[in-house]
Amino acid sequence: MLYNLSRLGYKCNDSFLLCGLCGPLLCLPPVFIPAMDCFKTVIFISAILLPLESLGSDRPNFILLFADDLGFGDLGCYGHPSSITPNLDKLAAEGLRFTDFYATSPVCSPSRASLLTGRYQTRSGVYPGVFYPGSRGGLPLNETTIAEVLKPLGYATALVGKWHLGVGPGGTFLPTRQGFDHYLGVPYSHDQGPCHNLTCFPPDIKCFGFCDLGAVAVPLMANETIKQQPVSFLDLEKAYSDFATGFISSSAKRKQPFFLYYPSHHTHYPQYAGKMAAGASSRGPFGDALMEFDLTVGNLIQALRDSGVDNNTLVFFTADNGPELMRRSRGGNSGLLKCGKGTTYDGGMREPAIARWPRRIKPGVTHELASTLDVLPTIASIAGAALPRVPLDGVDMGDILFRHGPSKRKAMFYYPTDPREKYGVFAVRLGKYKANYYTRGATHSDSTPDQDCHLTAFLKRHDPPLLFDLEADPSENYDLNPARYQDVLQRIRAAKADFEEGMLFGESQVEKGIDPALEPCCTPACTPKPSCCACG
Amino acid sequence: MLYNLSRLGYKCNDSFLLCGLCGPLLCLPPVFIPAMDCFKTVIFISAILLPLESLGSDRPNFILLFADDLGFGDLGCYGHPSSITPNLDKLAAEGLRFTDFYATSPVCSPSRASLLTGRYQTRSGVYPGVFYPGSRGGLPLNETTIAEVLKPLGYATALVGKWHLGVGPGGTFLPTRQGFDHYLGVPYSHDQGPCHNLTCFPPDIKCFGFCDLGAVAVPLMANETIKQQPVSFLDLEKAYSDFATGFISSSAKRKQPFFLYYPSHHTHYPQYAGKMAAGASSRGPFGDALMEFDLTVGNLIQALRDSGVDNNTLVFFTADNGPELMRRSRGGNSGLLKCGKGTTYDGGMREPAIARWPRRIKPGVTHELASTLDVLPTIASIAGAALPRVPLDGVDMGDILFRHGPSKRKAMFYYPTDPREKYGVFAVRLGKYKANYYTRGATHSDSTPDQDCHLTAFLKRHDPPLLFDLEADPSENYDLNPARYQDVLQRIRAAKADFEEGMLFGESQVEKGIDPALEPCCTPACTPKPSCCACG
Repeated sequence: MLYNLSRLGYKCNDSFLLCGLCGPLLCLPPVFIPAMDCFKTVIFISAILLPLESLGSDRPNFILLFADDLGFGDLGCYGHPSSITPNLDKLAAEGLRFTDFYATSPVCSPSRASLLTGRYQTRSGVYPGVFYPGSRGGLPLNETTIAEVLKPLGYATALVGKWHLGVGPGGTFLPTRQGFDHYLGVPYSHDQGPCHNLTCFPPDIKCFGFCDLGAVAVPLMANETIKQQPVSFLDLEKAYSDFATGFISSSAKRKQPFFLYYPSHHTHYPQYAGKMAAGASSRGPFGDALMEFDLTVGNLIQALRDSGVDNNTLVFFTADNGPELMRRSRGGNSGLLKCGKGTTYDGGMREPAIARWPRRIKPGVTHELASTLDVLPTIASIAGAALPRVPLDGVDMGDILFRHGPSKRKAMFYYPTDPREKYGVFAVRLGKYKANYYTRGATHSDSTPDQDCHLTAFLKRHDPPLLFDLEADPSENYDLNPARYQDVLQRIRAAKADFEEGMLFGESQVEKGIDPALEPCCTPACTPKPSCCACG
Repeated sequence: MLYNLSRLGYKCNDSFLLCGLCGPLLCLPPVFIPAMDCFKTVIFISAILLPLESLGSDRPNFILLFADDLGFGDLGCYGHPSSITPNLDKLAAEGLRFTDFYATSPVCSPSRASLLTGRYQTRSGVYPGVFYPGSRGGLPLNETTIAEVLKPLGYATALVGKWHLGVGPGGTFLPTRQGFDHYLGVPYSHDQGPCHNLTCFPPDIKCFGFCDLGAVAVPLMANETIKQQPVSFLDLEKAYSDFATGFISSSAKRKQPFFLYYPSHHTHYPQYAGKMAAGASSRGPFGDALMEFDLTVGNLIQALRDSGVDNNTLVFFTADNGPELMRRSRGGNSGLLKCGKGTTYDGGMREPAIARWPRRIKPGVTHELASTLDVLPTIASIAGAALPRVPLDGVDMGDILFRHGPSKRKAMFYYPTDPREKYGVFAVRLGKYKANYYTRGATHSDSTPDQDCHLTAFLKRHDPPLLFDLEADPSENYDLNPARYQDVLQRIRAAKADFEEGMLFGESQVEKGIDPALEPCCTPACTPKPSCCACG
């Protein structure tokens, strides 16, 4: 077990003695500590502290895997009967699988902002909805990402895949400006450009649908440079996998600790896959896309093993929001949860999540409440990094991960796609109870038999809120009689009031609007735009 | 790996040599087989065959676990977020988990008839609906159960739990008349008697609801004698577990191979649990009932270990039909499948299933098509028993179990609760495609948001049938355009015609009606009935 020397930025393990008088900040070899002489020892140790870099090779590595529009019921290990996800299933078998893990938004950009900052999207201003290729805004640069938390400790940092937290004028909001040394990827959703003439499956199967016809073709960027436009979907996953495994092995070779963030485009619409996965699943285009992601997960784990750092790496997997049910058989599945993407029912925000760290995390299943918000504080705690000096909404998951213990998180607050102070949160989960103050369907969740999920289910206020016991009724089918749950409702009301009192809405970054001239174009001076933006 | 000497009733394992010339029926130690002298060897071996009994101790044992009204999504290992099923999850982790396993009926008695006979319920006449305490009919005695298949090979046989295949005049249809040496249990559903004044949870929590007020109190029987009436729900599971583990250990001690069939009352309404499980789950009454069943599964596995026969025992688990959704939070959950009990949507008939046999069955997941119909032929094949000389609908699952290979089963036919020759089957699954010729909701599946599941969704004929790709769309949400699947529809039509041509409906046993005088009563001469029937 590791203890954190968080203020000093050092750590040590169980073979060293923890000096009880000094608290959890210090652990030392027994020879250094004469009985009752702890304070002197602290001074002594402070004097002989080695430069951070010299201990860098002992720091744990982090890989953060983030799937796109993947539902609670989409993985084999979460009960899907025809998904082929052997590597993610193995990750679950070797690690800790979460049953009650939440994203903070039922759509993409806000969810990603929370994951990387440990703060609700309302604080950072990443709302309403998502960023577009020409969005003027982005994740504000004064927000501190996980990469920026780790950089001061000497970590190598890389992002491969979908950013979707803004591009902005001159690439102001790209990952390279947010703590990532290296970036390879599409800076937003891969449907945010025309896709009808692109190939999504070999040999030449066109992508299904049209996507965003008015935007520039989807670019692939290396750091801040456009490498290819439009991106080649058939080659993309291999490029990502090679980039990611290369980053793992080169970091390990340098004995530099690393943080790899891999937000995949899979399984977002339009689904695509290269030759390794195309047609290989039994679940059609969605299944193939999922399998391609799963194959990369396998490649990354193999790279950890080959580089000798498997036992020193925490791999954490989850997804941004629920399935896009409107894509019918090409969309995901929220399993037994109600509705999907775009809604504040659990199907929109409850996600699969797995934490794996050989020898450190005991395999199993946890029913503890946790969230993407908690990833930053957990990583910071494990690495011994300082937390950003801003109000954080996340808590350290260490007790869950390393002791299968109780969560520090007591509540989860559900913001809709378009949070407004006037409405506040749409729903609150406190322990096993969930109160829906507002409900609303969404285009994204159209098409299943549950009418509540559809766009035609307009905003509805519930007073008292609809109350559910999510343990007895995870599908939110049977609301409880409020008269018999006054105490629960009172506690939820108090938690909601407390939370909303402490919530300061940041200026909306999405409402800064769109300037088509900001859309990434590999030949900036070309005409006519957007169609002339094509290279590589 | 075992090969079957099925005609001779012998078996052997990999350390013996399989004589290629003689096919899979024979395997012998190498010393017995001179090169190219196989036929002589067969004659030689035939002459020295030992009496069956002398090899009895080498025969594998079988435990068949059968849950009640348990949905596809109800176990932890099938994705339920709050069920606590560690022993069943472990069974799955150590064994082979099925994703495409079907019962033959969306209600109880017919499903059980098929499980025990390997034949659709229409052949045996166990339809429409279920048996009642005073039913005149039962599973016909000329039907051959798994117990009767194994008895000639010297197996000890026992049934503990819910029979529900008839009682009849003088106990004509009790398990003891169908090949079971020992029986302890309630001979039908435990809601088929008044339950409002019974205790379902300690210390004195009454059962929820009223159950069948007009019938005698639910009896507990030992062989053909009523031991207790009404049954004590708080003590029942312990009695079952003790009986079952005692049977395992005594059989093992005698070195007698055994077949234990444990059809649990869990998780059928009204849910109950003794002190070990009551309040121990987080999922309420349903979760507690499920946990009590799970604890017994753990006890049985432990008994196998303690008796030294764990490696020589196939444990097979599944359930009779989909969840009774009308029970709301007290009912089960079919996960991502459509509807539940009473319907021919997959939620009514697709079930969790697990096969475990240490060292023989490689752990994993299979997506092969299989059914309760296949249990009898599989057990017969493994044991080397003769198959009943009647038309069987089951196939040997050996290729799936022992080689993770393809299923011999190509199709599954869905009969409604009330099969009629005029309508034929309501649906057909052929490979990954399912065609719904008729659909209908059911009272049992009332209460979820999907209107198709409700009683108010009356019988509807579909011509052409609604066609689904169950691998891309296991939830049966998006029917395929029939014009583009003419070949598939043609193959399904042919399979249906072929099947129905070979289906001879047996005389309905349920329509023989009810005679209240046949209801089991521990004091047969008492008045007034049914309330006077109370003992123990």
